[in-house]
Amino acid sequence: MTISVPADVLSRLKAVLGEGGWSQDPDRLAPKLLEWRDRWKGTTPFLALPRTTADVSAIVGICHEAGVPITTQGGNTGLVGGQIPQGEILLSTERLSTIRDVDAFDDVIVAEAGVTLAAVHEAALQVRRRFPMGLASEGTATIGGIVSTNAGGTAVLRYGNTRDLVLGIEAVLPNGEIWNGLKRLRKDNTGYDLKQLFIGGEGTLGVVTAASLKLFPILASRATAVAAVESPEVAIQLLVRAKEEAGGAVEAFELMGRRGVEFVLKNIPNQRDPLHRSYPWYVLIEIASGEPGAAGAAMERLLGKALEDSLILDAAIAQSEAQAKAFWSVRENQSPGQKPEGATWKHDISVPVSQVAKFIAQATAAMEAFAPGCRITAFGHVGDGNIHYDVIRPDGGDDAAHSAKRNEGSRIVHDIAAAMGGSISAEHGLGSMKTEEARRYKSPVEVAALSAIRQSLDPKRIMNPRVFF
Amino acid sequence: MTISVPADVLSRLKAVLGEGGWSQDPDRLAPKLLEWRDRWKGTTPFLALPRTTADVSAIVGICHEAGVPITTQGGNTGLVGGQIPQGEILLSTERLSTIRDVDAFDDVIVAEAGVTLAAVHEAALQVRRRFPMGLASEGTATIGGIVSTNAGGTAVLRYGNTRDLVLGIEAVLPNGEIWNGLKRLRKDNTGYDLKQLFIGGEGTLGVVTAASLKLFPILASRATAVAAVESPEVAIQLLVRAKEEAGGAVEAFELMGRRGVEFVLKNIPNQRDPLHRSYPWYVLIEIASGEPGAAGAAMERLLGKALEDSLILDAAIAQSEAQAKAFWSVRENQSPGQKPEGATWKHDISVPVSQVAKFIAQATAAMEAFAPGCRITAFGHVGDGNIHYDVIRPDGGDDAAHSAKRNEGSRIVHDIAAAMGGSISAEHGLGSMKTEEARRYKSPVEVAALSAIRQSLDPKRIMNPRVFF
Repeated sequence: MTISVPADVLSRLKAVLGEGGWSQDPDRLAPKLLEWRDRWKGTTPFLALPRTTADVSAIVGICHEAGVPITTQGGNTGLVGGQIPQGEILLSTERLSTIRDVDAFDDVIVAEAGVTLAAVHEAALQVRRRFPMGLASEGTATIGGIVSTNAGGTAVLRYGNTRDLVLGIEAVLPNGEIWNGLKRLRKDNTGYDLKQLFIGGEGTLGVVTAASLKLFPILASRATAVAAVESPEVAIQLLVRAKEEAGGAVEAFELMGRRGVEFVLKNIPNQRDPLHRSYPWYVLIEIASGEPGAAGAAMERLLGKALEDSLILDAAIAQSEAQAKAFWSVRENQSPGQKPEGATWKHDISVPVSQVAKFIAQATAAMEAFAPGCRITAFGHVGDGNIHYDVIRPDGGDDAAHSAKRNEGSRIVHDIAAAMGGSISAEHGLGSMKTEEARRYKSPVEVAALSAIRQSLDPKRIMNPRVFF
Repeated sequence: MTISVPADVLSRLKAVLGEGGWSQDPDRLAPKLLEWRDRWKGTTPFLALPRTTADVSAIVGICHEAGVPITTQGGNTGLVGGQIPQGEILLSTERLSTIRDVDAFDDVIVAEAGVTLAAVHEAALQVRRRFPMGLASEGTATIGGIVSTNAGGTAVLRYGNTRDLVLGIEAVLPNGEIWNGLKRLRKDNTGYDLKQLFIGGEGTLGVVTAASLKLFPILASRATAVAAVESPEVAIQLLVRAKEEAGGAVEAFELMGRRGVEFVLKNIPNQRDPLHRSYPWYVLIEIASGEPGAAGAAMERLLGKALEDSLILDAAIAQSEAQAKAFWSVRENQSPGQKPEGATWKHDISVPVSQVAKFIAQATAAMEAFAPGCRITAFGHVGDGNIHYDVIRPDGGDDAAHSAKRNEGSRIVHDIAAAMGGSISAEHGLGSMKTEEARRYKSPVEVAALSAIRQSLDPKRIMNPRVFF
């Protein structure tokens, strides 16, 4: 689809943005038009590179007046195609890259949309604080994208999703007006909490230009372990114990199946099998406490009792930072590790925690019937009920044949999650890829309400028009 | 204001609700038409007492069709008049009183709107879990009201406001349709998070009929202390240390001035001065940890170092549950303790934590100039930047004269908070009382967006029409 942008609109945009503030050079545009897994390729007549919120306001105002659609892009790490324009003007936040403030009294950092997550981590450390979100893509993913997709990651169990970490935002609305909601208050009950719509709004209600984010203390003790269990069901029992034993101190509780671990060992260099023998399932547990020594003590109590009760088959507590990193590396390489195995149907589902084992069992039975010989890896944030459930083509099978069955196969997986009160997109969002699929699972009442809200703020539907209802 | 309700609408409502499901008896209505501080008195032609979500749907549908406005009321503990009808039909949630589920695997409780906070606490304890919200009114305040006002309380520092504790809601929309958003997922990124508008929406977008709420582990160790400090400024320094020393384990950090403590000792029976001597300011600190003994150890380290460094003047760590309760009693009686002292201008402001001391100093100077002889008590959730800043008439002064100056005085206080990036209603909401005042401090851009959203979901403005923009 090509959207034709009137020449006078382009020249007004160029005038506002000035030298270096825009591009139509195909080489400059290319990396922004391709998603990192090569699944989404886009087109755009114009790349806008605003440097200030006022620039963004001017651009959006011009486009609003002319009815020209805009797609906003941060670090281009999204997985559902939301950031890849299909003919719209592309607004990149890369030059909105200032950390405006970091304050250890208020426990807050105020960062512009184009600041990377890694830069936020670093700035927080400099005032002896921590921004707890962890993403594999943190060197590239930006605050604007993280806020707009309500990103999750590996510390959600303790600290919540992005939604729980945002104190305020600044945004340019679809009509070009600037909304300064950049508060740093822990409490403010004065009307609907407008920022909540922008968090996870995937750029459909305007452009998030900056956010104020909560910082946390650096914790004195941290313990990382891998435990082997017989089944996902036992993993959940162990999770319940971990939460009871360690109070609020469980930071991560990640599940991996043996097959996924083997793919990592086979396909990624310098990885170690986490335990001496092989076991059907593993959990990676991290506990952190403000009390010196407490994390290690809680981990030892938890695993000791679990071994005594034969809940776990084996376990290892990391004895060094390096060993903890090695454990995490096996977890973080679950996705890259399976890539060489061929075409894959990926699912980012969540179900109530109590239903995780049932989900994996039902989905696996269904997939084995639907795609005989397929290889399944199930891994992820089981503490949040969020499983990355991936169905890889049979060993030596045909990629194209497997991909051709993707939609039908994914439908089966999604139906199973939905029947358990689950979500078909726990953390990746809807983007262009899952919007229609989501419509299938939402009630007409909800879709109508969401559409009405969008319509009320963007009546011309110029912001990320391909995304949402 | 009386709103005339057509006779046929009343008879349809009566038919839907059936015997015991409605009332027009003035004695039955009276307690629901008076706010507990006697500041708001209401009128209504009809009290609806639905027993099911389907009942609520039918009532709202009938009213929507006829354009008849509705005010929803939970436990009637609100402080800003939002729950008191001024001629609208009154919908009480008192018979929506079922706890539908409580589950220690999912760490969730699903409660209908009319269930009290105390009943939720109790049900959670029965599965060895904790719902951490603490409110002085917890025996009366209901889940519907708590969700609709995004209630805060004494554990916000660690667990957040209601918004952070809600996993899903069920609501009846202004057109009478039921939205079942009663999920129990920790992660679900599939469009705008609709429930966020209902949380803190003060009943303007429909009726919250049930909510699923997060449960937490019961923590193994807990320590409560009172420390004396020279000034609010030092209290903030101590807060920063407490957060660093105890990691995420600080559950409460509450400030009280000497005057407020004295009012409690004078006006409330069976209260004890928390320390042996009198000091200008006090903080009540609570630390809790999943690790046995860790809370006490962290508290001792914190206070020991703070004494060494002369940051605090004196301190006492509660040696028993009874002593901890006695400390909390002085805190919780700050408001009742000042009531006998006469007319009071109450303020529920928040500012960034770093600005608390400056706010108290500036506001106090301004009040002493504006209302010579007034007596100020400042207390509250200083860890969240939320101060209840109350200005009591001069000793022996005239109540009516003081009340007459309320609006002008409050304006000064609010202006000072707003200039610091603060809020004029940190936790109590806007209701009928503060809506117009809030308009003054919000940007026209924000007010327009909030109005557009409301209009999109309630075009006839039948839900709590007196409240919000």
